[in-house]
Amino acid sequence: MKDIFAGLIGFGTIGTGVIKLLRENEELIRKRLGARLVIKKIADVDIETPRSIPVEREQLTTDVNEILMDKDISIVVELVGGCTHAKTFVLDAIRNGKHVVTANKALIATYGNEIFDAADDGKVNIGFEASVGGTIPIIKTLKESLAGNNIESIFGIMNGTCNYILTKMTSEGRDFASVLKDAQDLGFAEADPTYDIEGVDTAHKLAIVLSLSYGKRVELDSIYREGISEINQQDIEFAGELGYTIKLLAIAIRRGETIEARIHPTMIPFDHILASVNGNYNAFHLVGDASDSVFLHGQGAGMMPTASAVVGDMIDISRDIIAGIWRRVPLRSYKKEGIKDIKLLAMDDVKTNYYLRFAAVDRPGVLSAISGILGSYNIGISSVIQKEKKLERNAVPLVLTTYKAREKDVQMALKEIDKLDVVLGKTTLLRIEDDTLR
Amino acid sequence: MKDIFAGLIGFGTIGTGVIKLLRENEELIRKRLGARLVIKKIADVDIETPRSIPVEREQLTTDVNEILMDKDISIVVELVGGCTHAKTFVLDAIRNGKHVVTANKALIATYGNEIFDAADDGKVNIGFEASVGGTIPIIKTLKESLAGNNIESIFGIMNGTCNYILTKMTSEGRDFASVLKDAQDLGFAEADPTYDIEGVDTAHKLAIVLSLSYGKRVELDSIYREGISEINQQDIEFAGELGYTIKLLAIAIRRGETIEARIHPTMIPFDHILASVNGNYNAFHLVGDASDSVFLHGQGAGMMPTASAVVGDMIDISRDIIAGIWRRVPLRSYKKEGIKDIKLLAMDDVKTNYYLRFAAVDRPGVLSAISGILGSYNIGISSVIQKEKKLERNAVPLVLTTYKAREKDVQMALKEIDKLDVVLGKTTLLRIEDDTLR
Repeated sequence: MKDIFAGLIGFGTIGTGVIKLLRENEELIRKRLGARLVIKKIADVDIETPRSIPVEREQLTTDVNEILMDKDISIVVELVGGCTHAKTFVLDAIRNGKHVVTANKALIATYGNEIFDAADDGKVNIGFEASVGGTIPIIKTLKESLAGNNIESIFGIMNGTCNYILTKMTSEGRDFASVLKDAQDLGFAEADPTYDIEGVDTAHKLAIVLSLSYGKRVELDSIYREGISEINQQDIEFAGELGYTIKLLAIAIRRGETIEARIHPTMIPFDHILASVNGNYNAFHLVGDASDSVFLHGQGAGMMPTASAVVGDMIDISRDIIAGIWRRVPLRSYKKEGIKDIKLLAMDDVKTNYYLRFAAVDRPGVLSAISGILGSYNIGISSVIQKEKKLERNAVPLVLTTYKAREKDVQMALKEIDKLDVVLGKTTLLRIEDDTLR
Repeated sequence: MKDIFAGLIGFGTIGTGVIKLLRENEELIRKRLGARLVIKKIADVDIETPRSIPVEREQLTTDVNEILMDKDISIVVELVGGCTHAKTFVLDAIRNGKHVVTANKALIATYGNEIFDAADDGKVNIGFEASVGGTIPIIKTLKESLAGNNIESIFGIMNGTCNYILTKMTSEGRDFASVLKDAQDLGFAEADPTYDIEGVDTAHKLAIVLSLSYGKRVELDSIYREGISEINQQDIEFAGELGYTIKLLAIAIRRGETIEARIHPTMIPFDHILASVNGNYNAFHLVGDASDSVFLHGQGAGMMPTASAVVGDMIDISRDIIAGIWRRVPLRSYKKEGIKDIKLLAMDDVKTNYYLRFAAVDRPGVLSAISGILGSYNIGISSVIQKEKKLERNAVPLVLTTYKAREKDVQMALKEIDKLDVVLGKTTLLRIEDDTLR
């Protein structure tokens, strides 16, 4: 029986999971592959601290070149993270004719073009299923199963930390800061949570998904992005009253030749299946022009779910190696000659429904002043909630939802409204996706 | 640019969808594939009736041999349905060295072994993604993405007609017969609905999914099967009171070396994501030993969703053809030498939770008589609902749910209970899946 040798760079949680999985399911994988998938070397800066799974001393090294230069090794698994060392290791592996499997979303989102070009030149494959949505087969579904479809829209819950926090805030009525602290204590959130809660992680994932759906790398900075740190109980409660739940969504919608792409907290209807995504799960709601909606849900992170995706890619690449080919599906699912730039719609030109919460002085004429300004910007009001409950300085919360309106118009109207004497403080704006979500 | 020629046998709804999709997304597919995917011939007994998409007269034939014998054609798409002609066409195509794409679940479930063996001998590939779950990438996910996992359990809603009927019965409080009639009028259900509502269609799909997960064809008759025609409003209401909703589930659970496989109406908790599957959607909740749960949801039938899966398979096979190989993933995801028989657990030995509704005479001592018999069979009671509402003959509905019990014990206990003077008529039994559903 043939042996396929791999080397692992980065022996942290995921790396340990990969070793564990390959060991525990060795026989199963051999039966599926018709070959043995063997980790020949594991490189890490720390080879002293014992991991949860025992490894032979001679399998370990602190020198990545023992992997990168090993002629037996055909697959390099990069689990270092970050974009400095990881990038060097991946490019070196490619240059040495080795296939690469990585869970590194920042690397693929930021340096995808460079890495994919190098892989094309070097005739090697890059497996990056684990970089988006952990265990969820989103990459393979976009590149292969839905290959006959134009992707009309993608609505994704791509960050488990944010979804955990929003779920707890909604079900337990607690505030952002206290739930964040819990998440940190439980290890779901980092000590510095910015990367997760401000939507940076989500932007990396959306950029990858966009490039698989529409063909080219997207500049990360061109994706509009808002995080969840400003969400409060008042808005969660009003959302509930209106029949919505609040999720941090990554959204991509095909608008002819341009693509609308944005990340922000979003109100979605209770009865849409995305509203059932709770806790630290991730989910992707894709609509293809033929497939209609395809909804994928699972653990977006964690030791074994991520290891499952890494090993899935290793098996995929091994099947190519056994078949004597180096790759059969283009890295972005498009042949290089078919790739064109993705034009993103400017956020100003996005049209959606809005939830606006004003802190209004409880006095006649306020609603008329606000709705007058909205009207002058062509923004129609679809519902109004006014509560008697007093806020500070004699203000009451006034909630309006709008018909489809243009982002620029809404922002300009709010600028004007926030200058009114009868409006105290900055108005809260949240976007509602309703009929856009099939 | 290379042309890959395909022939289509069966120009019905799905066939028309395939032609439409290949035509409308021709450029997209060419960009992804680096080749043109061309339908050279379409065979059907009826080539006179115009379809919703126009086709050149010379592309049509009533003689399948014009496809099966055409040396240019490398992919035969079988959309005839049934197991007689379809089987002959598929085997002839294989013998002539042609790859096959089919949406025919009955054929794969019944003659999978024979067809797959022939395909191995003939060095051709069989694409059957469309045969289970329509647009949902369940086949590819099991064969490729989750290839490193032992599949611990599969809970699937695999029949859209049943799910539509149960959803309407639940949301509108209507009875089975009236909703079935609606479904027939809307074209969701056949004039003779037996195949759908008695779970035969679901059994075909579960058999295919079992063979991909565990390696060998399963005898259809060995899968325990109950349909939905006995479900009534009373049980739907009691289920709601207990926090459950009723779905027709196909269930497979790995129990060491044996597999538990069964199809029946099942109570599942409201807050489980499978309970959010409404209308005519299909869904699969898979648990791998590493991946944890992976949940896939989409249209299980329909012209374009099914065409999407067929075209996905055509692209997949074309990518192999372009790479110069005939197949890289074994048809059941296991190499032939790794395939062993699947041992199914006898239904008698299944252990689960039960919902039992008795029509009990409203008289002291009844609960004690019933619970006494249950106790003598080691069946523990976890909850009781007794209503004052009278049924016919002075009976009241008495509902018990049980802790985990063995099917055989429950059946024997019910036989004894149904003989009691204080129990009128046959007791209703439904199974509850709660903690088995992660």
